[in-house]
Amino acid sequence: MSPAEIEAFLHEKIPLAQAMGVRVESSGAEAFILTAPLEPNHNHLGTAFGGSLAALATLTGYACLWHALDDRDAHVVIRRSELDYRHPVRGTLRAICRRPEEGELAVFRSTFAKAGKARITLAVTIEEDGRGCLYFRGDFVAIR
Amino acid sequence: MSPAEIEAFLHEKIPLAQAMGVRVESSGAEAFILTAPLEPNHNHLGTAFGGSLAALATLTGYACLWHALDDRDAHVVIRRSELDYRHPVRGTLRAICRRPEEGELAVFRSTFAKAGKARITLAVTIEEDGRGCLYFRGDFVAIR
Repeated sequence: MSPAEIEAFLHEKIPLAQAMGVRVESSGAEAFILTAPLEPNHNHLGTAFGGSLAALATLTGYACLWHALDDRDAHVVIRRSELDYRHPVRGTLRAICRRPEEGELAVFRSTFAKAGKARITLAVTIEEDGRGCLYFRGDFVAIR
Repeated sequence: MSPAEIEAFLHEKIPLAQAMGVRVESSGAEAFILTAPLEPNHNHLGTAFGGSLAALATLTGYACLWHALDDRDAHVVIRRSELDYRHPVRGTLRAICRRPEEGELAVFRSTFAKAGKARITLAVTIEEDGRGCLYFRGDFVAIR
């Protein structure tokens, strides 16, 4: 699936992604990157709303795993997350999820194939000008 | 400020609140309650999107504290949060933030008055049919 196809899928299935103006910048082998403009996502201070940052990080982890799993029968859901807000975001929101190591993904896929359920922890960072503004860790579960 | 005034304020200052259809159900002495309809907040499974739940819980904590503090010079921001997703939400999203004890609020207000900065932890629960679906804990900071 191309970034444009993933973007269309997210906008169709998750209306908040459309309302936030989410774009897929990269769905490459190294990292999955989503962006969103500040305008629909600002707060009372003119910086990014913490809830928009949380929603974008959650969506990035979800979409990264869904894309890496590449299994039409898998439903990916979030179970837990921890968010550490370090600095305000003043421009475009840009969330980066490093793709899990191939070995970890292989275990995840084989557990899912055997048990119909598998769990994985993903880290997402929202960066601006090379600085980490939000650090997100989420436990995601794939269920058949 | 009445619930309708708080709602208008949130919609004006935080466009995502408007996109999510956030309503103020209660801003009472016991609990601050925000709701949002499922339609703009659903995911690929037709239940509430985890990112919408995270955004609503964050907004509820923020608005509860901002309302309780009642200080025009205070800017409330989030520093950390932990979210535990227990059950899917199948209908209206309804987030409840119990107002902090008066003693805790008094310490928070006096610290803020003296230091121009104060921190507090708030718990928000998203419930459906009396069942806790999401448990959120967030550290919020008020800054002058």
